Amino acid sequence: MVIGGVACGPKAAARARRRDPNADITIIERGELLSYAGCGMPYYIQGEVKTTDELMMTPAGALRDAAFFKFVKDINVMSRTLAQRIDRFRKVVEVVALDSGETAEVPYDKLVIATGADAVVPPCPGTDLKGVFRLNHPMDAEGIREAVANGCKEAVIVGAGLIGVEVAEALASQGLCVTMIEMLPTVVPSVLDPELSLLLQKQLEFHGVTVLTGTRVLSFEGDDQGLVRTVVTDKGPVSAQLVLVAIGVRPNVKLAQDAGLELGPTGAIKVNEYLQTSDPSIYAGGDCVENVHLITRKPVYVPLGSTANKHGRVIGDNVTGGKTKFEGVLGTVVFKAFDWNVGRVGLSETECEKLGIPYVTALTPGPDRAHYYPTSKPVILKMVAHSETGKLLGVQAVGPGDVVKRIDVAATAITFGINARDVSALDLGYAPPFSSAVDIIQHAANVIDNKLSGLAKSVTPLQVKRRLESDKDFVLLDVRTPAEVQSERFKNERIVHIPVGKLRERINELPRDKDIIIFCKTSLRAWEAQRILEGEGFTRVWFLDGGLAAWPYPKD
Amino acid sequence: MVIGGVACGPKAAARARRRDPNADITIIERGELLSYAGCGMPYYIQGEVKTTDELMMTPAGALRDAAFFKFVKDINVMSRTLAQRIDRFRKVVEVVALDSGETAEVPYDKLVIATGADAVVPPCPGTDLKGVFRLNHPMDAEGIREAVANGCKEAVIVGAGLIGVEVAEALASQGLCVTMIEMLPTVVPSVLDPELSLLLQKQLEFHGVTVLTGTRVLSFEGDDQGLVRTVVTDKGPVSAQLVLVAIGVRPNVKLAQDAGLELGPTGAIKVNEYLQTSDPSIYAGGDCVENVHLITRKPVYVPLGSTANKHGRVIGDNVTGGKTKFEGVLGTVVFKAFDWNVGRVGLSETECEKLGIPYVTALTPGPDRAHYYPTSKPVILKMVAHSETGKLLGVQAVGPGDVVKRIDVAATAITFGINARDVSALDLGYAPPFSSAVDIIQHAANVIDNKLSGLAKSVTPLQVKRRLESDKDFVLLDVRTPAEVQSERFKNERIVHIPVGKLRERINELPRDKDIIIFCKTSLRAWEAQRILEGEGFTRVWFLDGGLAAWPYPKD
Repeated sequence: MVIGGVACGPKAAARARRRDPNADITIIERGELLSYAGCGMPYYIQGEVKTTDELMMTPAGALRDAAFFKFVKDINVMSRTLAQRIDRFRKVVEVVALDSGETAEVPYDKLVIATGADAVVPPCPGTDLKGVFRLNHPMDAEGIREAVANGCKEAVIVGAGLIGVEVAEALASQGLCVTMIEMLPTVVPSVLDPELSLLLQKQLEFHGVTVLTGTRVLSFEGDDQGLVRTVVTDKGPVSAQLVLVAIGVRPNVKLAQDAGLELGPTGAIKVNEYLQTSDPSIYAGGDCVENVHLITRKPVYVPLGSTANKHGRVIGDNVTGGKTKFEGVLGTVVFKAFDWNVGRVGLSETECEKLGIPYVTALTPGPDRAHYYPTSKPVILKMVAHSETGKLLGVQAVGPGDVVKRIDVAATAITFGINARDVSALDLGYAPPFSSAVDIIQHAANVIDNKLSGLAKSVTPLQVKRRLESDKDFVLLDVRTPAEVQSERFKNERIVHIPVGKLRERINELPRDKDIIIFCKTSLRAWEAQRILEGEGFTRVWFLDGGLAAWPYPKD
Repeated sequence: MVIGGVACGPKAAARARRRDPNADITIIERGELLSYAGCGMPYYIQGEVKTTDELMMTPAGALRDAAFFKFVKDINVMSRTLAQRIDRFRKVVEVVALDSGETAEVPYDKLVIATGADAVVPPCPGTDLKGVFRLNHPMDAEGIREAVANGCKEAVIVGAGLIGVEVAEALASQGLCVTMIEMLPTVVPSVLDPELSLLLQKQLEFHGVTVLTGTRVLSFEGDDQGLVRTVVTDKGPVSAQLVLVAIGVRPNVKLAQDAGLELGPTGAIKVNEYLQTSDPSIYAGGDCVENVHLITRKPVYVPLGSTANKHGRVIGDNVTGGKTKFEGVLGTVVFKAFDWNVGRVGLSETECEKLGIPYVTALTPGPDRAHYYPTSKPVILKMVAHSETGKLLGVQAVGPGDVVKRIDVAATAITFGINARDVSALDLGYAPPFSSAVDIIQHAANVIDNKLSGLAKSVTPLQVKRRLESDKDFVLLDVRTPAEVQSERFKNERIVHIPVGKLRERINELPRDKDIIIFCKTSLRAWEAQRILEGEGFTRVWFLDGGLAAWPYPKD
């Protein structure tokens, strides 16, 4: 018996059926819809996906309704039915049919809890106004699309997480004036380190989205018809006829908790590697459980459709006599933000700081395919590695180029605990339409290698920004060509400009008794310059990691 | 001292310089050009890359000429200079300046041989006619582009390898009538197993390329001006004003061989894991050496620009006191063929057969991103795993969808010897614009898992084709919907059509004493049907691996 009809639940049921033709399998679902693709909702709002039906169909075009489950999979579906209580002693679930109000007891041998998560509603007045949405269910998406069709002009998105960004694109691309409000200082703070967040924020602003970070929503105010009109923040009011609250989701654990099942430190249901709860007859998976992080081995709550599907398969195995393990997750997140792609896997620098893990980073902008190939687009990639073991800990990347391929390679590498420098030896697919001869992720691995071996010495954008803001006397050496300097100015009185090709002959123009921070566009030539200066006996030289291409601050 | 100025050579030199500012570094190059991106030549022919200069520039737009190497990297370049002989005893290289004819001896402490490879010319008359090209050098590409500009209408490409396919696209997309001639029975025979080759061949034909497989070129015939006019084959003559011979490349080993350095079984220079030749003072890398295959541990010859760059870095380390290893390659190949992407990594089924490795395969067509996402495109992926250990051995994929991401994930996984079923647990990046909740490569891994556990029983397209050609009595069960059957017919008198959703109720229409081979579009539902029938006590049931989407033969 399975409680929950989306993602993990139906997957577990279907898998169990394939393994055991004789099992008696029932899915209980509080809603009407089953197995919808919740992650597709932003694209429905955007109009890229035309109907919510498309989110409900198999690739072959079959609607995944109760009849489909019955006829194709011989699985009973009780929809519009709420599981109210689990009696673990008698092994029954008390259910209530939402339409008739009738109650019943359904017995189980093995129970699967796949109750998912619900969007968090902030504890402030006005969240029940018309026009204030969460994105929990296709009905919510339909409501938002209707609001847009009815002529809403101004939208506010509360929470600059990945759903917030996806919906910001969906609305802005339809001409709405969109404001994102985020309490924390940067967008997608749980996904990206600040410098990449800032680059992404610029991109959102470039597409017309107003981004208010470090801003707290105090209340929503409506008109006399109960329609939302204003979002009141600690920085002032923002006008809106449409609000999406997307500050996160919370696992639906009440049923499990009431039944005395153990929750983990994240507040989600605790499961072992076989996805069993503290009651061995009861399994749980999907957005209502926590997972082990494969690097830290600590519990994390990262609800994702892909993980829910994996859970379903593992549970389907184990409820039918199998012994399949689910080892954990890497916190992989990828999303599209207008014409940028964003992704991260493993640990960020911020997380390493918090966890006290010694690390080294490389910030490497570069083309996603051969730079001379016409569809080549930039990617800015940040790699994090353990500074003692050299192990790859994480990769983040943003840009119009192909980010996700690199994230997937990193996910595979991190899962098997490989060293960052081993990434540079991988025999990845190379052809000019797909990558450079040295792919950007391998280039990053080489930079990590150079830093670990002491060959490369860099400073981060944030470090340089702080020094620029201080009074400190140092030289900022620009080694780009005169044409590049002309086309992209960096204004600061400390700047000395010597193109890398002239550096050897003009070396005496540089002081040996001051710190020299070198920059170029991507930091390739700046690194070359660092080595040239060191070769000439300079010792106080560093390059700006990521160069101007990854510089997220103003250039003056 | 480095012999060879493209890819591996300059990379080794540049890396050595970065590690050692005081080393005296010289590159000897027989041509005029250095560090050109040879892999970009097909795109120059196509017009996607406008000038050969673009193939010579750094991403920052600097021309990689002798001055660049001198000023930026303090590396001496002797271009238009031929290395004639290596005197290992005296540690000198005899060189001749090609323009003046002057000879000299250049001493070395460490020598790097990076002499590359040359295109093989078939031993048949007429290869010296005007209009018969190889693609060895940007000058060849310029010659081909000139021939197109001069109005050539018919082109023949001898050899359906990856260069052949790339240039076929380059020429056909400019309106030329292109014929590919391949001696072996399938296109890109060293890259893909036959069923995927046949699918690719259809795609080439769809774009107007005439593909003649199993055809041998006997001679090239020209007009009285010495211009090629006809390619004579064992199947008849083909008219052409432009011929590209692309039957493979051969490593340039003469210099090494004359110096008494050991060659390997592939005919390329033998090197150890530090890329040292049999003379420890002499290193070699790039297209003139063989590599260890990471699965078989046997030497293979797979010349690639990406590998050459890795070699360069390793050699640059080791000639400056480092101890960096190059472990080997996986034979990864990716390329674009019109709007299809093609890739493979590791071992193919054909290779496993040859090597006597017990294997299991999965042929899985599917969308490259969420099937409801508008830019979703199909990929047909074939996975090969060791049938005893379960280890992932290889992946091949073709189709308009994103093939290369999956190849790169597989390359990473295979390098670390992981099991196919572990691929299905990877925390890969999931969002509808990038992948399905269960990515196609993870779906393939699940199929492998199902086959290894005995749950899934399949037959390959070739096995079904052979049975169809025989007189054997069996049932071909089509479980698609009536609408699908209508739109894509498969004609055979053995076919029984029962949609999967009706199978349970119509099960008595099927014989229990005959073999039943089930098919649908992708083999997902056919597998479901196999399990349904087995659940009802049928034992002689199998599904057609890959379904109609991967069926490469005629459908009647």
